[in-house]
Amino acid sequence: MRIVDIIDKKKRGFELTKEEINYFITSLVNGSMPDYQASAWLMAVWFKGMNEDETAYLTEAIINSGEKIDFGDLAKQIVDKHSTGGVGDKVTITLIPLLAAAGIPIAKLSGKGLGHTGGTIDKLESIPGFSCNLTIDKLKEQVERIGVAIGQQTGNLTPADGKLYALRDVTATVDSLPLICSSVVSKKIAAGADNIVLDVKYGSGAFMKTPQKAVELARLMVKTGKKLNKQITAVVTSMEEPLGRAVGNSLEIIESIEFLKGNIVTGDIAELTYDFAVLALMLTGKFLDEETARNYLQELIHSGKAIDKFRELIAAQGGNTKVIDDYSQFGDVKYKTEIPAKNTGYVKKIDAYKIAYGCKLLGAGREKKTDSIDYSVGVFLNKKTGEKVSEGDILYTIYSNSEEKTSLCKEYCDEAFEFCSDKPEKTPPIYEIVK
Amino acid sequence: MRIVDIIDKKKRGFELTKEEINYFITSLVNGSMPDYQASAWLMAVWFKGMNEDETAYLTEAIINSGEKIDFGDLAKQIVDKHSTGGVGDKVTITLIPLLAAAGIPIAKLSGKGLGHTGGTIDKLESIPGFSCNLTIDKLKEQVERIGVAIGQQTGNLTPADGKLYALRDVTATVDSLPLICSSVVSKKIAAGADNIVLDVKYGSGAFMKTPQKAVELARLMVKTGKKLNKQITAVVTSMEEPLGRAVGNSLEIIESIEFLKGNIVTGDIAELTYDFAVLALMLTGKFLDEETARNYLQELIHSGKAIDKFRELIAAQGGNTKVIDDYSQFGDVKYKTEIPAKNTGYVKKIDAYKIAYGCKLLGAGREKKTDSIDYSVGVFLNKKTGEKVSEGDILYTIYSNSEEKTSLCKEYCDEAFEFCSDKPEKTPPIYEIVK
Repeated sequence: MRIVDIIDKKKRGFELTKEEINYFITSLVNGSMPDYQASAWLMAVWFKGMNEDETAYLTEAIINSGEKIDFGDLAKQIVDKHSTGGVGDKVTITLIPLLAAAGIPIAKLSGKGLGHTGGTIDKLESIPGFSCNLTIDKLKEQVERIGVAIGQQTGNLTPADGKLYALRDVTATVDSLPLICSSVVSKKIAAGADNIVLDVKYGSGAFMKTPQKAVELARLMVKTGKKLNKQITAVVTSMEEPLGRAVGNSLEIIESIEFLKGNIVTGDIAELTYDFAVLALMLTGKFLDEETARNYLQELIHSGKAIDKFRELIAAQGGNTKVIDDYSQFGDVKYKTEIPAKNTGYVKKIDAYKIAYGCKLLGAGREKKTDSIDYSVGVFLNKKTGEKVSEGDILYTIYSNSEEKTSLCKEYCDEAFEFCSDKPEKTPPIYEIVK
Repeated sequence: MRIVDIIDKKKRGFELTKEEINYFITSLVNGSMPDYQASAWLMAVWFKGMNEDETAYLTEAIINSGEKIDFGDLAKQIVDKHSTGGVGDKVTITLIPLLAAAGIPIAKLSGKGLGHTGGTIDKLESIPGFSCNLTIDKLKEQVERIGVAIGQQTGNLTPADGKLYALRDVTATVDSLPLICSSVVSKKIAAGADNIVLDVKYGSGAFMKTPQKAVELARLMVKTGKKLNKQITAVVTSMEEPLGRAVGNSLEIIESIEFLKGNIVTGDIAELTYDFAVLALMLTGKFLDEETARNYLQELIHSGKAIDKFRELIAAQGGNTKVIDDYSQFGDVKYKTEIPAKNTGYVKKIDAYKIAYGCKLLGAGREKKTDSIDYSVGVFLNKKTGEKVSEGDILYTIYSNSEEKTSLCKEYCDEAFEFCSDKPEKTPPIYEIVK
């Protein structure tokens, strides 16, 4: 078997066999194939795609390229949740303690985000002392002990994905459905959970710009997961405006705490968290009826069990649990600038991408893995889409450590808002559930 | 400017600017772009192609990536001839002394062939002592002194092409018209001639399998050459059966000598050599009338001036001129095996690829640059397409240094021949001339 023939076959649009895909991934990981052949193959896949069988073979080959976490009998109960990523998306953080409180073990591995605002790990590590740097043994032990753990992806799991992603990033081959699918699903399966819930986002703040493309990706992911014998559900959700009101690492943790305390009961964060939690309860067979599941979850919030579980998680991973009752423990920013509305009417839309870009200018995200993040900066949306605004109302608030950065951020955020005179229809957060 | 954006732009099918193409080639040659980005770009070009402007920019950027030979005022008269390569193709060797004898200066750089049978340099170096290892100064001096020189391509000219070709070879991106065009035309232009004659072959023994594809390539090459201010003509010729009767390095030189001595006056080699020579005489303006040019060339053969020029060339490049009158100077093979025909009828076709493969098994070509070549082995076609054969006639002769290799070669050659009972129509060697 020669790599050049595998590239040529894909280039001409033929289906690759399991053996060919395995040979490709093995050669990638053991270094016998140079990167320039891998990248030519990636570009051929970008053009010609892969069918469901090929995508499943690729996913399996990536899983087999490294270590796998083995939770033993516990795997059947464990749920893993993944989001393709969006602005202000803290639903992983609200969901995990809630599910753990409901007795669903959660083991999640997350990557340090590259992007305009931090990833889940960055958000959690904005809690002083909190560390996601867990060994696999520590992760397993913690899941067994308190039912929840969040670790950082390591190169030991799915090393082939690490190599492929690094190449895709610099060869304009990121936006390929089978490559995205195999990358996400392989990481989830290698991480050991039998039940997987995926949030596939579309919109201005997401990678997929249209709901149709997001549904296509969701379907491919679900089919791939099922071919590899996993319980898997994908939810296609809107990312036209930021999720919730807070964008920025510690600001998002504060909003998550408010939800877990029961202080946020309406809006997209509450809706999505409950929807995902209900799906997970059904997926693991804990409840068969949505209504009962939803009531049970609300009771976990109202009784304080959900926020207690978050406290337990923070303590287990070395974080300062005082943040839950005293937000000043996160550290304050130098400048908190409230921006008033110039118009009267309704917010018609808030461009998620522009808000994210504004936050990036404040220092909330990173471009290179070595960049440092300013955890406390960000934007709080005092008004969201569909809400009434009168001239002079506070529209949004910028949390910043530099006056210059504040005004740069303001430029982008001002542009993000659109207004209208009649109350606009709201897009429901969930577009489609793919099972 | 970022390379990833240039890849993305081509991937999406947009036209690249001259600046973008220059930046890509500069980054390739100075090493600031890793090969994995270059190969992803090559695959994107394979899929999306390049228009005439882009192809000319790429060709020019490759020319500018290294040294150029400057013949000064002589450049206007100098002719360079290039063939995309075929089995038994010795027309460069017959043409060069003939044109030089006609007073047309010839400077040709050639590559060591990778393939089933040797390249032009290998054929010439089968003459004991002959060396194509000329410096650029020596090449220029020899052209000025005796009107003809054949050198080996060096990495100093068009280094970008060397890098791109090495990548294309292992990433299944060789068969792309703009990439083939820019590779060939850039090398010709950097070699300093103002007048270029290209032989673009199609058929089983050629890279382009159909005449249509060969015409498409020929048109692109001519347009590119003209955009870069060169006199350029491309001739699309058939390579369904081997050219001439000899396939194999020294066997082909012997056939060339026979032509130059005037002993071969009909057949494809004679036809093509005269046609190309006439084109060159017209291109440089030496003759305006084809008939007069053809008569003049025939006189150069009959008078012995052509073979004398070849003798002069051999002597100038260190070769043993005795080969011209004594073919045993090439060294004999151990086994000369005449294969008789089993049928009576006409030769319908001879598959050039299969004959070439048979010769490769004898050791006539190389796969890697470091492989050595057995100059004296090969196949002589005693019968060619359209010729009458009676059972027991000698069909072809195998020149070999191993009985085992002889029988391996015979298997392929036997398969190459097809017969029919009525005299078949012959395809004329020239399909189309593109000016």
